[in-house]
Amino acid sequence: MNQTGGVSLVQTNRSTEENFLLYIREMTHLQEVLNLLFWDTRTGAPKNGLELRAEAVGTISAKKFAMSISTEMKAFIDELTQCNNFQELSPITRKALEHAKKEYELHTKIPMEEYKEYVIVRENASKAWEVAKKESDYSIFQPHLEKLVTYNKRFITYWGYQGNPYNALLDLQNPGMTVDILDRVFATLKKKLISLLNRVKEAKGKPTTTFLFERFSIAKQRDLNRYLLKELGYDFDRGRLDETVHPFAMELNRNDVRITTRYDEFDFKSGLFGTIHEFGHALYELNISDELIGTPLCNGTSAGIHESQSLFWEKMIGLNKNFWKRFYPALKQYNPDQFNGVEIDEFYRAINSVQPSFIRVEADELTYPLHVILRYEIEKGLFNNEIELSDLPDLWNQKMEEYLGITPDNHEKGVLQDMHWSAGMFGLFPSYALGYLYAAQFRSVMLKDLIEFDHFVENANFIPIREWLAQTIHVHGKMKEPNDLLLEVTGEELNPDHLIAYLEQKYGEIYNLESES
Amino acid sequence: MNQTGGVSLVQTNRSTEENFLLYIREMTHLQEVLNLLFWDTRTGAPKNGLELRAEAVGTISAKKFAMSISTEMKAFIDELTQCNNFQELSPITRKALEHAKKEYELHTKIPMEEYKEYVIVRENASKAWEVAKKESDYSIFQPHLEKLVTYNKRFITYWGYQGNPYNALLDLQNPGMTVDILDRVFATLKKKLISLLNRVKEAKGKPTTTFLFERFSIAKQRDLNRYLLKELGYDFDRGRLDETVHPFAMELNRNDVRITTRYDEFDFKSGLFGTIHEFGHALYELNISDELIGTPLCNGTSAGIHESQSLFWEKMIGLNKNFWKRFYPALKQYNPDQFNGVEIDEFYRAINSVQPSFIRVEADELTYPLHVILRYEIEKGLFNNEIELSDLPDLWNQKMEEYLGITPDNHEKGVLQDMHWSAGMFGLFPSYALGYLYAAQFRSVMLKDLIEFDHFVENANFIPIREWLAQTIHVHGKMKEPNDLLLEVTGEELNPDHLIAYLEQKYGEIYNLESES
Repeated sequence: MNQTGGVSLVQTNRSTEENFLLYIREMTHLQEVLNLLFWDTRTGAPKNGLELRAEAVGTISAKKFAMSISTEMKAFIDELTQCNNFQELSPITRKALEHAKKEYELHTKIPMEEYKEYVIVRENASKAWEVAKKESDYSIFQPHLEKLVTYNKRFITYWGYQGNPYNALLDLQNPGMTVDILDRVFATLKKKLISLLNRVKEAKGKPTTTFLFERFSIAKQRDLNRYLLKELGYDFDRGRLDETVHPFAMELNRNDVRITTRYDEFDFKSGLFGTIHEFGHALYELNISDELIGTPLCNGTSAGIHESQSLFWEKMIGLNKNFWKRFYPALKQYNPDQFNGVEIDEFYRAINSVQPSFIRVEADELTYPLHVILRYEIEKGLFNNEIELSDLPDLWNQKMEEYLGITPDNHEKGVLQDMHWSAGMFGLFPSYALGYLYAAQFRSVMLKDLIEFDHFVENANFIPIREWLAQTIHVHGKMKEPNDLLLEVTGEELNPDHLIAYLEQKYGEIYNLESES
Repeated sequence: MNQTGGVSLVQTNRSTEENFLLYIREMTHLQEVLNLLFWDTRTGAPKNGLELRAEAVGTISAKKFAMSISTEMKAFIDELTQCNNFQELSPITRKALEHAKKEYELHTKIPMEEYKEYVIVRENASKAWEVAKKESDYSIFQPHLEKLVTYNKRFITYWGYQGNPYNALLDLQNPGMTVDILDRVFATLKKKLISLLNRVKEAKGKPTTTFLFERFSIAKQRDLNRYLLKELGYDFDRGRLDETVHPFAMELNRNDVRITTRYDEFDFKSGLFGTIHEFGHALYELNISDELIGTPLCNGTSAGIHESQSLFWEKMIGLNKNFWKRFYPALKQYNPDQFNGVEIDEFYRAINSVQPSFIRVEADELTYPLHVILRYEIEKGLFNNEIELSDLPDLWNQKMEEYLGITPDNHEKGVLQDMHWSAGMFGLFPSYALGYLYAAQFRSVMLKDLIEFDHFVENANFIPIREWLAQTIHVHGKMKEPNDLLLEVTGEELNPDHLIAYLEQKYGEIYNLESES
């Protein structure tokens, strides 16, 4: 046993490759523990223990961070990346080494003192944002946002970037994603979505939705959600379902991926579609090749690809008409009074109702990407010095009016609505729109491969669909970079036409739109 | 940030004392994580994830172990125990240093290779014991038990001991406990309990207990247990109640101490008294002085004292007649059919019914200590080379007949019933009887201090009782050694007369015994 506690498994009679694999395996154990701490904190840890709990999280985080930049790690990287050594490594080790090297550089290029300052800046910004949002007063938040942007601009120069400085931030959660790609794709998507939305707004015969908001007991919702998860194929021997305030799926290890949800007694959709969404995330993690266990490659390859899996299940399965042909009778049984006399068509149109709204997280499938594009444009402008921070609220409102046709009457519902910037998260928002784009693009291929797709969904035979996703996307984990994965699976680069066609076809039918010539 | 991951908080511009306190605080964080992993594994972690989970547990355990024997730890001990330095330390640091030094020696005196061998011996023994128990065949387990005893005998020589070699094992869970003390106390206790038990056996008018085993829905039991915990004063902002197979209480940190229980649909007592028992353990940990947070002193001082707190609440409160004067009407409401027509006296006598039985964990208050004394005598004999391993089954059965008047007809219900020995746990059993002895001895003082004790219990006013326990026992944590605590609180050494008097008085009344002259 090594005396430092850092590398107890590493022994000298093993090869450097073996020692490296043991070392990173220990790091995955620390990550499992951090994920358990997170899960527990958000699913029922007693509140008075959270202050001390935060110390434990800090200690484990620091240990994992220290391992990522230790002298041992440096030695592994230096020795194993030497040309001859590198060629002899297994493909998994090579990829894991790449990953470790990228992380090493990310963590060491920022001077430690500066990063510590930034952590404090970020904490203060979060607190200020909470006050600012509550009082709907942007001026409280602006100086903090300015500091956060300044620090991140410096980090970008430390890290380096290709093309646009904002690419460095995009790359953090979506490796290989660039402003070039997003500008091209979002321009088309924005134009088409605004046009489709305008046609929907003008359509006659809007769906009735009031019946959706009747009382549905939470106990019954719990039963319904468990039932649906089982039908979808969630394995409760490899996961569990709990309740929380901000739902998430959490991988503890390859065979323990948990789902959380929240129930609203007067909006059963919230829990139901939230659960299906998190199921999609969980399924990804559960299907990664077991050869990647114990490496940092045993996770989804990017935030955007991950979101494509959750959105595929939530939107393209859960909001699919064939799905409800099969499950509407079952749903009715859980709360008969609510759906008495509501025909399936009426139900289907109601859950797919489109309505521009101020809040991104409450937006429907059609308007959601516009919320994201707005944020992308602002972030890109900030990191290219094209936008003044003082202009943000007005810019936000102008874009809301331009894209969605509505203007928030206060900043709480406008520029202050998201917590992301206050936590220093820049470059993440595009993931949410990428999720839709990837999902639609993958779906186009799936529909060719599974010609009986509609039949499968209507018969709740999800096995072929899960298998297709597992073998085509999930199994690779981080072994394939997101751009490569997309190209290999779909034969093309990111292409907004798939999402546009999907939305036009679906909402054209729901709103009886004439096809746009 | 230090690069080894072991001591990231330790900085050179702090005093050695401050650095030592930060170092042991990190160790408490690792312990919190280990306790969370344990709790999660036993309250619902999905079963297919447990194999990988075990690796994470191994990594964190190894890290904590490594910190306890690191060169840093050795340097802290060497520097701070030097006479002048030691005098200048705060009392808490001095005690924590003592604790760290004791642990350092415990961990370093056994050669690492030998300890690794022992871990494997123990794993094999556990598996063999499971088979042996299932087949009720002691010969399958005996060779493994022999190895376990041999290893532990060697460990005792490495550690050293005073007086009897078995003292080294007793000291592990009950610091300062010795064969001298136990021989003296158990001899008296055994004689008096056997005599009292014989009088109970001959008593006329045994309690009727059949009504206790009627159906009581688990949902209603859950409600009942939560209700009672709140009445007893368990703070759900500092803990939670979950279900498991082998119930336990678990301190994650000073403000997060969780209780687990299990429900039997046809034996509500099992869950109810189990919950009260674990409440007693939890209350101890919740009341330790916040000055001890972040040190290994922020836990109960010994297994025996801990057990005294759980048994006090379970037996001396939960099986108390005044308690049920207050709570029997409430209990009835949770399952009216079961208790219809059952008067409180009948109920009280039923839950206190005495019946010699083979299985320790199912034993009543009166016979339980005899099960423990039997095991103590066998362990002491083994580690003093006075008993042959091949004689164990017969010896067990002889003692059962002598103490309880019954002889198990197979070894599954006899010598093979407990998992302790198969896990290498020797010296722990006496804690369970010590718990009764301490509880009764503390109670004698409490009754003098709180002359309205009966009144408090009958009115569910547990505040004075909790306060007394908190200020007299709990607050000290491990700052006071168990023998010192007992002497300071009760003014005498361990004295079996208190338990004997309590039991004679209580069961004399329940069974209408004439007082023994």
